[in-house]
Amino acid sequence: MPRAITAFSNPLVKQVRGLRDKKNRRRERLFMAEGLRILTEAREAGTLPRILFFGAGARHPLLDTLIEEIEAAGGETIETNSDILHKLSGKDNPQVVLGVYDEFASDLDLLDRSKADLWIVAQALRDPGNLGTILRTGDAVGAGGLILVDECVDPFSVEAVRASMGALFTQAIAAADWASFIAWLRADEGELIGTSLKADQDYQQPRYRRPAFILVGNEAQGLPPGYEAECDTLVKIPMLGKADSLNAAVATAVMAYEVVNQWRHG
Amino acid sequence: MPRAITAFSNPLVKQVRGLRDKKNRRRERLFMAEGLRILTEAREAGTLPRILFFGAGARHPLLDTLIEEIEAAGGETIETNSDILHKLSGKDNPQVVLGVYDEFASDLDLLDRSKADLWIVAQALRDPGNLGTILRTGDAVGAGGLILVDECVDPFSVEAVRASMGALFTQAIAAADWASFIAWLRADEGELIGTSLKADQDYQQPRYRRPAFILVGNEAQGLPPGYEAECDTLVKIPMLGKADSLNAAVATAVMAYEVVNQWRHG
Repeated sequence: MPRAITAFSNPLVKQVRGLRDKKNRRRERLFMAEGLRILTEAREAGTLPRILFFGAGARHPLLDTLIEEIEAAGGETIETNSDILHKLSGKDNPQVVLGVYDEFASDLDLLDRSKADLWIVAQALRDPGNLGTILRTGDAVGAGGLILVDECVDPFSVEAVRASMGALFTQAIAAADWASFIAWLRADEGELIGTSLKADQDYQQPRYRRPAFILVGNEAQGLPPGYEAECDTLVKIPMLGKADSLNAAVATAVMAYEVVNQWRHG
Repeated sequence: MPRAITAFSNPLVKQVRGLRDKKNRRRERLFMAEGLRILTEAREAGTLPRILFFGAGARHPLLDTLIEEIEAAGGETIETNSDILHKLSGKDNPQVVLGVYDEFASDLDLLDRSKADLWIVAQALRDPGNLGTILRTGDAVGAGGLILVDECVDPFSVEAVRASMGALFTQAIAAADWASFIAWLRADEGELIGTSLKADQDYQQPRYRRPAFILVGNEAQGLPPGYEAECDTLVKIPMLGKADSLNAAVATAVMAYEVVNQWRHG
């Protein structure tokens, strides 16, 4: 049975609102996701929130299912008002449902490499929207997960979760420095594919093998030269206009679809 | 010779700062773009700002070139400080150069269709980052421009200009309602290509003809059924995971690269 919270001063409201800050997320190992669509994607991927906030008067069969399952699992469900939802999410038009989840980023050694033929590796990614969009694309191309190399933006930030449209819950996430990543990668099979402005080879030229690891670099700098040198295959996506690069999430998607298209066609 | 402005109360500072609001941009038919890279892309595409602000102490050969060319063209160059640049751009770490440009969106009838074989058409696009990213992709695939159908986010917003990374200046932009767009489209040759979750045909199956018009729908709703029905070719991009859609800018890029890849290979 949901309990009601309508007071701004409620300590839980204060605690959840604090999850908009990275340092609080790290300390509490919690993050928030908003919107019935994203929470339902999470549920279908097997993840329920610890705490669910929903607006009084919100009615939807998918919301009923969420509430039932969260309560059956021992989680907390809280009916509240739009002012508090606004306070929690920081948005002018807050979603009517908001969930608080356990962080689940894991160590490279805990990733199950046999789970998928395709993995995405992002290096020093700075933009949470790009990170979320890459997770969403990862799900779409059947990737197993996203490996964050070097200092990347937090995948559990509100903006990244939102941009992932729920794919955050279907993709494994691991973080590592470059040396650890390479040691882990080389301990088993896998082709490391990088895109670079300096590559001679068109991205449609190689025949990509399984498993493939697509490496995407920082938005402004691209990949450091030493990282490019470590790639098994370095290719360029043709640029037919005046610009010399694509948005990082777009480049990842164009590259990933080329790989899976080759595999789809045999 | 640049003049100096260091007073917050300067009316020009107030006017330019106001360009962050759409209603001021519309009234003054001006917009702003930030960063030496984007302003240089604009210059190389043949567009100089009416007014250039740059931080005192900023030194770069490309900035010198900009200042020279703007002054030769009768524009204004203004040396200022980082507090005022912050006030103008609204960013904590403002770029050291900022230009004020004339808006250039135009009527469909002024577009030169013979200029390119590929055009991108966005319908009811809501996110300025997506719009800018689509412009950047449009440049990369050699598109002629972007046609905005129905009520779209403003392509001259600070966020859209930033996400376009200068491609705003290489792409023609036109806005129209759906009926006017279709009348214009059908007055000449052109295949209208839409992506839809409901399509049976894989996006790699058709052989795309020139000229091609790629139609992308609203982020949340996709294309209205009547708009899909008007497409000459309706295809779906395979979704191999749990999600049922891609980010709008990503879907546009995956589709556009398929079209140009077919053309590149014969």
